[in-house]
Amino acid sequence: MPIADLNDFRQKLTALQTIDLAAAQAATERDSMLTKPPGALGRLEEIAIWASGWQRKHPPTLVKPQVIVFAGNHGVCAQGVSAFPPEVTVQMVANFENGGAAINQLAKAFGASFSVHPINLNHPTQDFTKAPAMTEAECIAALNVGWNAVSDTSDMLIIGEMGIGNTTIAAALSAALFGGDGKDWAGPGTGVSAEGLSLKARVINDGLKKHSQFLGDPASILQHLGGFELAAMTGAILAARIKSIPVILDGFVTCAAAAILAKINSSALDHCISGHVSAEPGHILLLNHLGLDPLLNLGMRLGEGSGAALALGIVKGALATHTGMASFAEAGVSDGD
Amino acid sequence: MPIADLNDFRQKLTALQTIDLAAAQAATERDSMLTKPPGALGRLEEIAIWASGWQRKHPPTLVKPQVIVFAGNHGVCAQGVSAFPPEVTVQMVANFENGGAAINQLAKAFGASFSVHPINLNHPTQDFTKAPAMTEAECIAALNVGWNAVSDTSDMLIIGEMGIGNTTIAAALSAALFGGDGKDWAGPGTGVSAEGLSLKARVINDGLKKHSQFLGDPASILQHLGGFELAAMTGAILAARIKSIPVILDGFVTCAAAAILAKINSSALDHCISGHVSAEPGHILLLNHLGLDPLLNLGMRLGEGSGAALALGIVKGALATHTGMASFAEAGVSDGD
Repeated sequence: MPIADLNDFRQKLTALQTIDLAAAQAATERDSMLTKPPGALGRLEEIAIWASGWQRKHPPTLVKPQVIVFAGNHGVCAQGVSAFPPEVTVQMVANFENGGAAINQLAKAFGASFSVHPINLNHPTQDFTKAPAMTEAECIAALNVGWNAVSDTSDMLIIGEMGIGNTTIAAALSAALFGGDGKDWAGPGTGVSAEGLSLKARVINDGLKKHSQFLGDPASILQHLGGFELAAMTGAILAARIKSIPVILDGFVTCAAAAILAKINSSALDHCISGHVSAEPGHILLLNHLGLDPLLNLGMRLGEGSGAALALGIVKGALATHTGMASFAEAGVSDGD
Repeated sequence: MPIADLNDFRQKLTALQTIDLAAAQAATERDSMLTKPPGALGRLEEIAIWASGWQRKHPPTLVKPQVIVFAGNHGVCAQGVSAFPPEVTVQMVANFENGGAAINQLAKAFGASFSVHPINLNHPTQDFTKAPAMTEAECIAALNVGWNAVSDTSDMLIIGEMGIGNTTIAAALSAALFGGDGKDWAGPGTGVSAEGLSLKARVINDGLKKHSQFLGDPASILQHLGGFELAAMTGAILAARIKSIPVILDGFVTCAAAAILAKINSSALDHCISGHVSAEPGHILLLNHLGLDPLLNLGMRLGEGSGAALALGIVKGALATHTGMASFAEAGVSDGD
């Protein structure tokens, strides 16, 4: 059932299911029987147990991984916070639809379905230095774009984003949720100059000041400082939790959208792993606040879900070993005891 | 042409081809035209350029990745350096042949061919605390097992190993090549106790002392302190260089075998990337000596080529984006200039 209003959104977050302990336990037991020294597959072992627990079944599967990219434009771009013009968002959506972007290649390489959801690209959010980024109705509509995009039959979800100016949005949300100001959270994004970076920090501070009376409530923070594609990601991550679909988180912007949920309910991201840490400096700070340990650290900073899609390869390896390896008994291998 | 003797081995290392600059340059140029901000794919960009340069062609391909596991047994196990008995090497080779090990699942997951080459499992090397591990003839034969196992038509090579006791061998080689003693390089391997660890360090020191007059020459170090599967890996990595096949290195034992080459010619591993850093403490020290920056750090410590095979997923993603993405011109996307 989609999100009715911001109260319903908050309500949905109060009674989340916890991990399926029986499925996680079955995975832990199987792991202990496989032909390897205990712990020798490192984080691959954790991933198999996590996937099993959140898919609520054992063995875990990876037959329908789904990659969804949400796209939006941002009124705050009028302040000059990005190295690229907002038209690039529209151009890149066409590139996604034509299969020409990085995320298309990565989704294909690891067998994931792909879809892109542009949201009101010709009607950007309001400039948050002057007005709330979204009305409540717009914010709910965007949350539900995400909510509705998640397929009931997916067994792993990767969400990504495209939106010129959205590292400014992510930095503003992070500062509002976790404290600090614009200079603590702003980074080069797609490549602004040092001058652009200090402008970006100032613009974020202007937004924080403008909406200071709403910053005590994460849902209101999303509405006042967020963006369409960010709200959609927030809605998709919540829908995945309710549909028992584990999520691989991407970079700074995705994690800022996810952080809204974590601030309302500290266990709301337990079904998520961090696919990678990006080169955008705010990302590692945000991951630390969220208690997430990224799988990859390869200096990527593209967005689009690209880091998470690459991490899907790691998850694929984890599930392949967990489900396909022989046990000590099956293989006739001494287990060292 | 296989390796005739240790002098021929040294000779083959004196005149190695360097990277194909034209192919690497073509990759760099294509990278700059793809629909992403410059550098936004981080290390994926480097990987595509590296693969192109060492495959000596553009675009680079990943249609015939090859995983080879070499197995050997070690006389030094009589000293009690491993938590597992040498029979496990034989049992695990059967597991590899039956498709039940972790490496089988990972090779399959990323589309690589797989073969295992057991070398004299019932006739282990000599205990290096008492005699040279191998005769020169045995060492050459093992080098050539590796040399001959590399297919001329592979476009990416992953080598792994299985050999109860071989982290002791890797630690002894590392100490002989780069200095330090047993306690600097010994680690828990498949899981020895604290007591076992100090025994392991003592045994390594005994080996270093026994063969001290041969430690000035890397090829002699391999013969006196090495093992069959290590020599085979050394031979395979050298063959790959000569056959223009880039290599993804695995863990501590693989890197110790590779280090023999690097000590003879400091550019001998330029066609290799480090797939991962393992939990075995000597590995990161060795990578630092070799100047290699691992792609993954997931707490793995299994050997078998498992970390490198997982990194094949990263290489697959790198080549998929490099070859499949649209250019700015093709996609009609503004490049921000």
